Amino acid sequence: MERTGFTYDFPRDSLLSVGDLNPLDVQMIFERARHHFDAARHNEENTRTLAGLTQIHLFFENSTRTQASFEIAARRLGADVVNFIPGNASISKGESLNDTALTLAAMRSDILVVRHRAAGAAAHFARVTGVPTINAGDGAHEHPTQALLDAFTLARRWGGIGGKRILIVGDILHSRVARSNISLLNLLHADVRLCGPATLLPADADRWGVSVFHDIDEALEGCDAVMALRIQKERMTGKLTPSDREFATLWGLTHQRLERAAQDCLIMHPGPINRGVEIDEALADDLDRTVILEQVESGVAVRSAILELVTGRAPNQSIADMRTHDVDDRRDEA
Amino acid sequence: MERTGFTYDFPRDSLLSVGDLNPLDVQMIFERARHHFDAARHNEENTRTLAGLTQIHLFFENSTRTQASFEIAARRLGADVVNFIPGNASISKGESLNDTALTLAAMRSDILVVRHRAAGAAAHFARVTGVPTINAGDGAHEHPTQALLDAFTLARRWGGIGGKRILIVGDILHSRVARSNISLLNLLHADVRLCGPATLLPADADRWGVSVFHDIDEALEGCDAVMALRIQKERMTGKLTPSDREFATLWGLTHQRLERAAQDCLIMHPGPINRGVEIDEALADDLDRTVILEQVESGVAVRSAILELVTGRAPNQSIADMRTHDVDDRRDEA
Amino acid sequence: MERTGFTYDFPRDSLLSVGDLNPLDVQMIFERARHHFDAARHNEENTRTLAGLTQIHLFFENSTRTQASFEIAARRLGADVVNFIPGNASISKGESLNDTALTLAAMRSDILVVRHRAAGAAAHFARVTGVPTINAGDGAHEHPTQALLDAFTLARRWGGIGGKRILIVGDILHSRVARSNISLLNLLHADVRLCGPATLLPADADRWGVSVFHDIDEALEGCDAVMALRIQKERMTGKLTPSDREFATLWGLTHQRLERAAQDCLIMHPGPINRGVEIDEALADDLDRTVILEQVESGVAVRSAILELVTGRAPNQSIADMRTHDVDDRRDEA
Repeated sequence: MERTGFTYDFPRDSLLSVGDLNPLDVQMIFERARHHFDAARHNEENTRTLAGLTQIHLFFENSTRTQASFEIAARRLGADVVNFIPGNASISKGESLNDTALTLAAMRSDILVVRHRAAGAAAHFARVTGVPTINAGDGAHEHPTQALLDAFTLARRWGGIGGKRILIVGDILHSRVARSNISLLNLLHADVRLCGPATLLPADADRWGVSVFHDIDEALEGCDAVMALRIQKERMTGKLTPSDREFATLWGLTHQRLERAAQDCLIMHPGPINRGVEIDEALADDLDRTVILEQVESGVAVRSAILELVTGRAPNQSIADMRTHDVDDRRDEA
Repeated sequence: MERTGFTYDFPRDSLLSVGDLNPLDVQMIFERARHHFDAARHNEENTRTLAGLTQIHLFFENSTRTQASFEIAARRLGADVVNFIPGNASISKGESLNDTALTLAAMRSDILVVRHRAAGAAAHFARVTGVPTINAGDGAHEHPTQALLDAFTLARRWGGIGGKRILIVGDILHSRVARSNISLLNLLHADVRLCGPATLLPADADRWGVSVFHDIDEALEGCDAVMALRIQKERMTGKLTPSDREFATLWGLTHQRLERAAQDCLIMHPGPINRGVEIDEALADDLDRTVILEQVESGVAVRSAILELVTGRAPNQSIADMRTHDVDDRRDEA
Repeated sequence: MERTGFTYDFPRDSLLSVGDLNPLDVQMIFERARHHFDAARHNEENTRTLAGLTQIHLFFENSTRTQASFEIAARRLGADVVNFIPGNASISKGESLNDTALTLAAMRSDILVVRHRAAGAAAHFARVTGVPTINAGDGAHEHPTQALLDAFTLARRWGGIGGKRILIVGDILHSRVARSNISLLNLLHADVRLCGPATLLPADADRWGVSVFHDIDEALEGCDAVMALRIQKERMTGKLTPSDREFATLWGLTHQRLERAAQDCLIMHPGPINRGVEIDEALADDLDRTVILEQVESGVAVRSAILELVTGRAPNQSIADMRTHDVDDRRDEA
């Protein structure tokens, strides 16, 4: 690959959808995340790159883990974090979302982190407020930081994602994690496979540039990584969806099943796991295989990087060395 | 106006009631708030004037916006904020308020911010603890920081409040916002008018030094600003109070109604708005008229100023230039 | 007492049980706590000894006071505090505690503060994560920081604990506060007495190295301090347990009852008090007797000390001067 000499600045002031990113953006996030990942492992002191900034968390949907990850990422870099707990009354009335957004912007917040059950909510906040906004999950639509931390975990292990065979198992249809991962893995030229109950697979999955399998053993053939999605118990009550036990039998990951995968196939899960359902106990605890905690660790590092990049606070926020085709990708999008 | 040469230090270590303030105090708050307002607009770095101080929030009544405003104001200036979520069990027993207050004081907190449904609660905390205390709303009694941010918003627009005609519309009877605003606007020599359903106006309103109107169109005549109060839906269920629709018809603000007001009459609301009730959609979104978001912005600035002043942390916390009659006011109170 | 010349470093990276401590450890905690106690009283600026550290609060059981005390202690010394509010769904499933613990460790937290209704929960978190962990109460088992702040309060008043007669009154059986206090007071060679309803005393209390009394007046004879435990109303509904009024009559502390105690006998309570039950109004408000608020004040100081010591951040974290028998104690334990 030939390298060009000019520089590239991170061009976004929000992170709303994986679809907004080009490979160069991802590369910048990963490079900075790598710095944070290593610094944390070596207990290095953080530079307070976000000092003086106020980050407001708007978690209309509860998520202890994601919220803690964003809070730790921000505070370590010196930002003030305010957990704005949306009043229940206000949420129920659709029209007041706008007013909430504008109110927060008027308080001069520097970063919004938004989780909401409606697709497009984070984008709406970003548009209405003009404040840098991170989508921490919007309905069944997107969860871009989860996809980035997943891909970062793999890229750090492998050096790169391109050409790797990655299987996503479970309720693809309702999963924003799946949606964002498919989009990002495609962008990075992975070979993406989906598998799960027929009722929980999208009807037009073949148009997403992925291969669809109904048989898990077939799907696992030669895989370099498997991402198990979390079973959303609240959705698993209908007639068309399997019970926990059925799911475990038909799609649950075990050591035995993995024999058809690549020899050092990695097991991922966004957490928290339903042990014995998506992944059996023995495999979940097999630290040669599962990188679930490494995903959590990567989560803080990737979010740290994103917060710095969208606020223009990353040191040397530009890359001088790029591949030619990445630049072309960028031009196509621009 | 003649100016005297000696200095005046902010004489309060709490802010419990507008009634405690004299015009000089208000002037000091506004001057310092003006500094913070401008600094935030220009993204200037804050000086950490409250560094090392611990501010405890005691919101017995929930209020996401007010709490966030105080939290942002404090953190930006370097204070640590601890949200003390009062245990439900303790609240129900009246006698334990004292113990809660004393416990917090024993933890060596430097500032208490108290919201409670009982009139006098914040004053009680201040008295029992000896800790600088800000009243963030006590029952139907007072909400002094709201009144100060409202008046600051107008003073910043107009240069001063004196002689301006300001109408307050809605449920005056139960509103601490109204009560504090009337008190402050009177202090600043505004011409204050009240209007609303007869059942929601105080019986002795004429003794408050204001004019009372039952007809909104008459009340609006020549007004320089209108403050719409938030309809408290939970109180609007009785026989004597109007429905949303009735309220909108009889007292709701519209462009048409405003034709009788002064040409550049400003529209205020403490938020969150019930759109289509207190203010109609078109007017709420008319940024030439409404200063609702500017009120929010002013809120952080005014609270920053107050926190600095009650803790003695405002730089140059004294005014060398005062009007003679202001000094007399102070002597009367001392 | 002869002094030896070599140094002793605080040897624990967690505080899980009073049983893990030897007298030297306690001495180190008290010396450092004394520094913080005095610094707070004199409004001295804190050194940011915990700067750059992230402390995560895991309060599976709600406790506003203890949580606020730990939060204030940590923030004053510059740590970032993240209140991880455990999802209810996750708590109910025993097996996911492990996953929660590992997830937090993967986020690279530096200190965990854990309160949980299961005995051994904090120890479990410490073992699974390898992260310095403070037990903020685990079931009916231990509450070591409460015992340390209680003993510190007395030691600061008296100079030392050894030989003092201390009575603990109430529901000893279910109380982790009692359990930790008995253990610590024994370690410090106090003369410990227990008194309470027969159904709420442990059957084998004599094996705990304490004297057990059923009659409060007898128990109070010559006492230097009395620790009243909080009546847990939720446990006081059974047939075998007394009503509030019965409890007050039979075991409630009053000025009259205290006549049999030592002249300057101190009254303690972990708070919040049920006034008129464990302690009558007049005695609760008698500041010559009760040191309840001093306990709260000591709480922040002791927790500050512990946080510094378990993270190795206390300045000069070693003691050069020790008593010979303390060293022997340590050797026995090692």
